[in-house]
Amino acid sequence: MKNNLNNILEDSLNYKIGETLDELKSIKKLDEIFSKRKDQLYREKDEGKKVYGRFCVFVPTEIICAADAIPVGLCGGKESTIPSAEEDLPRNICPLIKSSYGFKKDKACPYFEASDVIVGETTCDGKKKMFEHMAELSEMYVMHLPHFKDERSYELWLKEVYDFKDYVEKFTGNKITEEKLKEAIDEENEERMLSHKLYELRSQIPTPITGKDALKIFQRSFLLDIKDRLAILKEVISELEERVKNGEGYTGKRILVAGCPMVAGNTKIVDIIEEVGGLVVGEETCTGTRKFDNLVNGYTIDDLAERYFKINCASAFKNDSRIERIKELVKEQNADGVVYYTLQYCHTFNVEGALIEKELKNLGIPIIRIETDYSESDKEQIKTRLEAFVEMI
Amino acid sequence: MKNNLNNILEDSLNYKIGETLDELKSIKKLDEIFSKRKDQLYREKDEGKKVYGRFCVFVPTEIICAADAIPVGLCGGKESTIPSAEEDLPRNICPLIKSSYGFKKDKACPYFEASDVIVGETTCDGKKKMFEHMAELSEMYVMHLPHFKDERSYELWLKEVYDFKDYVEKFTGNKITEEKLKEAIDEENEERMLSHKLYELRSQIPTPITGKDALKIFQRSFLLDIKDRLAILKEVISELEERVKNGEGYTGKRILVAGCPMVAGNTKIVDIIEEVGGLVVGEETCTGTRKFDNLVNGYTIDDLAERYFKINCASAFKNDSRIERIKELVKEQNADGVVYYTLQYCHTFNVEGALIEKELKNLGIPIIRIETDYSESDKEQIKTRLEAFVEMI
Repeated sequence: MKNNLNNILEDSLNYKIGETLDELKSIKKLDEIFSKRKDQLYREKDEGKKVYGRFCVFVPTEIICAADAIPVGLCGGKESTIPSAEEDLPRNICPLIKSSYGFKKDKACPYFEASDVIVGETTCDGKKKMFEHMAELSEMYVMHLPHFKDERSYELWLKEVYDFKDYVEKFTGNKITEEKLKEAIDEENEERMLSHKLYELRSQIPTPITGKDALKIFQRSFLLDIKDRLAILKEVISELEERVKNGEGYTGKRILVAGCPMVAGNTKIVDIIEEVGGLVVGEETCTGTRKFDNLVNGYTIDDLAERYFKINCASAFKNDSRIERIKELVKEQNADGVVYYTLQYCHTFNVEGALIEKELKNLGIPIIRIETDYSESDKEQIKTRLEAFVEMI
Repeated sequence: MKNNLNNILEDSLNYKIGETLDELKSIKKLDEIFSKRKDQLYREKDEGKKVYGRFCVFVPTEIICAADAIPVGLCGGKESTIPSAEEDLPRNICPLIKSSYGFKKDKACPYFEASDVIVGETTCDGKKKMFEHMAELSEMYVMHLPHFKDERSYELWLKEVYDFKDYVEKFTGNKITEEKLKEAIDEENEERMLSHKLYELRSQIPTPITGKDALKIFQRSFLLDIKDRLAILKEVISELEERVKNGEGYTGKRILVAGCPMVAGNTKIVDIIEEVGGLVVGEETCTGTRKFDNLVNGYTIDDLAERYFKINCASAFKNDSRIERIKELVKEQNADGVVYYTLQYCHTFNVEGALIEKELKNLGIPIIRIETDYSESDKEQIKTRLEAFVEMI
């Protein structure tokens, strides 16, 4: 769709994907901070703070922070722990579920090991039932996320969020004061706004950052302390603003990835897209916009519950707001096409994908659906398909 | 477990599975009634009655009957309609979901075609999301079945059942009176009691009916009128009582099948079990005990909601009552072992199956897990596995 514009820009000073600008200093700094994260986490744990491992963007982390506890993402992006998970779980469930379970079972993830409790939610059949197995390996708390988006479901969800608050207060022994909650909400909202700012910069043509680097920032933001996240995002943004000002950036066929989460360790689809000359300019995923869309509008538990309930995950029946958001993002990010990404055996994103494909095709927006796991075995096949897709759009 | 007893009985007048007693007259009658069902249904429809197609045992059919409407099961047990479903749905979702969708799409099922509305429920990710596709082909009503078994979930479910009543009243234009509801509840309860009686007879050694015939009765009970169902069940029971009195029946390794539904058309696993010398004496499935366990204890909508909420489907998080029921059934039906049956890609029954296998093995109850679809391709492999299993127990 933006091909003509891209062609013009290719004649300017910009870089195509595959060539590189100098490495962003802020990404180097992110690497540094990340390398110290485990020590920082265990130090805070030694000082008496409780650690809450969580899988999903539906868990309201503000509540955890407001109780002086630490929310942290969990490992689940690597193939290496899947064989041991498959001793207990069926082979044909999604690689993210198997990988996470394997990480816990093998004690191979410092964030799982640091966690005093693991917080799950009922976003999908596979995870919901895997948690029954994981409960044998760890303290678990599972939030009930209902199937519908209606008022009745919201009422249930609101009670769940209140229960979670009570649970966190009891488990940490710390009262969640209004002040603490306000502070936590302000911080998370700030990160949300900065993430939007980052997306705005990525929407530029040329775009000042590769999808690979952007993914790294978002993946690590699940694992880092909020204060470090804010600091890094600010530095990234300031560097990218400089690039935009200088007209520096990458050109290539601009791709919006839509679908399942890509947690740390799993960069497969973005890597392939950018190998074949695509440029990822946004992720409509749980590690992308679903993490930071919508601010918490106020400082009460109700305000929190409301914001989280809006997350447009494919787990919901009649999830109409998601397709609308995808269409918006295609425009906002100046995308040329959509790569719809499904983790193998993820029924909700997979079945919803068919409806989304139909609607985007009707609108003339190029879309390709890729379902894959964490293995190397289908890499060449996906590469061939994506190569053709990128060439075509 | 009952091997010694079986050996002794084999020397008596009884029939091994594979040999046959005279055909049950009641089964012949069932065939006759069934052959006239379509005409009966369309005649009643012509007279102005509304038809409610439904997938799942969670839909409270009493409400439909009390509004002078007709509940009817839907087709979904055949492979023939899967290719056309796979044009819209992913290949790797369960065959029951694909087959049903294909039946509707191909207009190949008289029950789908007769249905004025199709009633779904949120028991699994695959169906929940498939309904979004099916809504393009038919009037749909989807009941929200929550994930948990707790009080909060029950409150939501209760409201859903009341909503369903309002919907049915509005859609049919018929008021559900106390009297009508009582009548409908009494009839369904009677069928539940008769089904239990049938199970009691199947628990006898020798058992007076093959698993194949029992499955036929239960599969067709989803499709027939309640009055016909009651009449047939009574005749079956009376014939079986006669057999038991005469010591007539089948011997063989006694198998409880536990797991996913087997809807009309799908007899694969029971056929194979009985081909290799097993004898199916009970089904802990949606087409077995989950359909008739627990009476409605009273005559209000609340009583109805309560009964249906107790159904121990693997879709629930922490579904502890199910394993208890399986253990009970092994005892009640004098089973020698359990064949745990999962429809391919059914995450909930599949993941729960691993926990159930572990528990039964700890108790010394033989169990084998089979995951399969509707195709012929894995039949020989399953046969080999089940042959070994039946020999071993």
